[in-house]
Amino acid sequence: MIDSSPRPGRSAEVTLTTLGGGTVAKRHDLVAVEEPFEIRLVAGRQRRSLALTMRTPGHDFELAAGFLFNEGIVLSRDAIAGISYCLDGDIGAEQRYNIVNVELRSDRLPDLRAHERLFTGYGACGICGRESLDALQARGLRKLDDAASVAAETLFALADRMRAAQPVFDRTGGLHATALFDLSGALLLLREDVGRHNAFDKVVGEAFLANTLPLRGRIALVSGRASFELVQKAIAAQIPILASISAPSSLAIDLARRFGLTLIGFLRDRRANIYTAEHRIA
Amino acid sequence: MIDSSPRPGRSAEVTLTTLGGGTVAKRHDLVAVEEPFEIRLVAGRQRRSLALTMRTPGHDFELAAGFLFNEGIVLSRDAIAGISYCLDGDIGAEQRYNIVNVELRSDRLPDLRAHERLFTGYGACGICGRESLDALQARGLRKLDDAASVAAETLFALADRMRAAQPVFDRTGGLHATALFDLSGALLLLREDVGRHNAFDKVVGEAFLANTLPLRGRIALVSGRASFELVQKAIAAQIPILASISAPSSLAIDLARRFGLTLIGFLRDRRANIYTAEHRIA
Repeated sequence: MIDSSPRPGRSAEVTLTTLGGGTVAKRHDLVAVEEPFEIRLVAGRQRRSLALTMRTPGHDFELAAGFLFNEGIVLSRDAIAGISYCLDGDIGAEQRYNIVNVELRSDRLPDLRAHERLFTGYGACGICGRESLDALQARGLRKLDDAASVAAETLFALADRMRAAQPVFDRTGGLHATALFDLSGALLLLREDVGRHNAFDKVVGEAFLANTLPLRGRIALVSGRASFELVQKAIAAQIPILASISAPSSLAIDLARRFGLTLIGFLRDRRANIYTAEHRIA
Repeated sequence: MIDSSPRPGRSAEVTLTTLGGGTVAKRHDLVAVEEPFEIRLVAGRQRRSLALTMRTPGHDFELAAGFLFNEGIVLSRDAIAGISYCLDGDIGAEQRYNIVNVELRSDRLPDLRAHERLFTGYGACGICGRESLDALQARGLRKLDDAASVAAETLFALADRMRAAQPVFDRTGGLHATALFDLSGALLLLREDVGRHNAFDKVVGEAFLANTLPLRGRIALVSGRASFELVQKAIAAQIPILASISAPSSLAIDLARRFGLTLIGFLRDRRANIYTAEHRIA
């Protein structure tokens, strides 16, 4: 049902000139691959192009599923009949693995009016801002009542564990990552992407397709900053603890507080800042 | 003509718990402010909500102008009659400085069909990928024939100079920056934002409003990765040299090569990688 076609690579070789230490040299190096990605929803005879973003190829079906779930467009695994690369004849060879069809069981497309905006800068933000915190509750996002807790020592070990599991980053320096851990600090899943949101969507999408949502008792660690949108995605997947190597934003903290998410920043060098719901840190 | 209303701050104070060194402490800290941002185009009696993204308040009119220019929607300063915060009565106090009206001199809105997509992940990517390199030329983006060149020693000094001029980052650790330099390495302008693209749009928007585009003989330095979209924005503004503290992506390199942009990565610790158009490095 889920097609597993071969896909383009996640890193590519380039030739470049290095400057430094008084020398100039030509060498080969690897860079992270960035390619466009389009999701097409198919319901009976209806079709709709839904999302267009830049992403690193790999785990594309998970990315599509995670995106649709996180945006609140497809909320149940059963609603999806299949996911495949689009093989329409008018698609050039170079775009062949850049368009994914998500076929719904319904013969009618969901109501997408709430998502219809021009240039929605990563659509997740919906109507936005403080006013949108209410809208998110209206959308059905629930407060996290997860009794999970994690020891500080366990937290401190996560960053190194994520980095050790990032094969493409080590080679290219160009990828964000999201890692999912259990409360003992065991790494369950890691996904990389040029886009911070995509890496997170891939993790949630994998759980969605495996029917293991909600992700209670889990810790998500992200390589970049903790923004409003990542907090929103964590709440949608009911992940109780979100940690970041870097800083959170003001609105991310507001949202985390409102929904009872434990938000951790600057998790590195055996230190951490806990911004909200600190009762989950033992 | 350009309203300069007071605006919300770029950093906000939060209370947090710090873990580390065997201690737990409460303290206050500053975080970068993240707020939604909407651009409304006004032409005669026509209105259209155009873009919704998360951004750090500050230089909002420049952000709006830079976004419109970089997207190819408004190409000339003269096309804009005025920019102001939207003061409609139905806008709550908290969103007061989050919506900007861009009033056009024309009494008809521009044709936006090419931009109409759901969830365009930062709209810039248009139709996308390798196929879109052709589309960008069709849109009128021109190859860079700028004879500018910069000495390696000058390049090496830029990263420290940018960092020294990043007041909010130093306090919050949470902001991206774009800096504009001349060929002697003098800092001309620096803008910060939670979004990489926004910081770049603010720099270009300031030049657009000051009628100093194209930015020939300039170097742009970005704090994050060099993605396809940032390369596209640099070409639109005719900036000949784009440098990044971090890694470029594969598609960023393809696009830079195609349009003759000098793309530099990993500019730090007196080293740099030159990926394309290295003739501009003396």
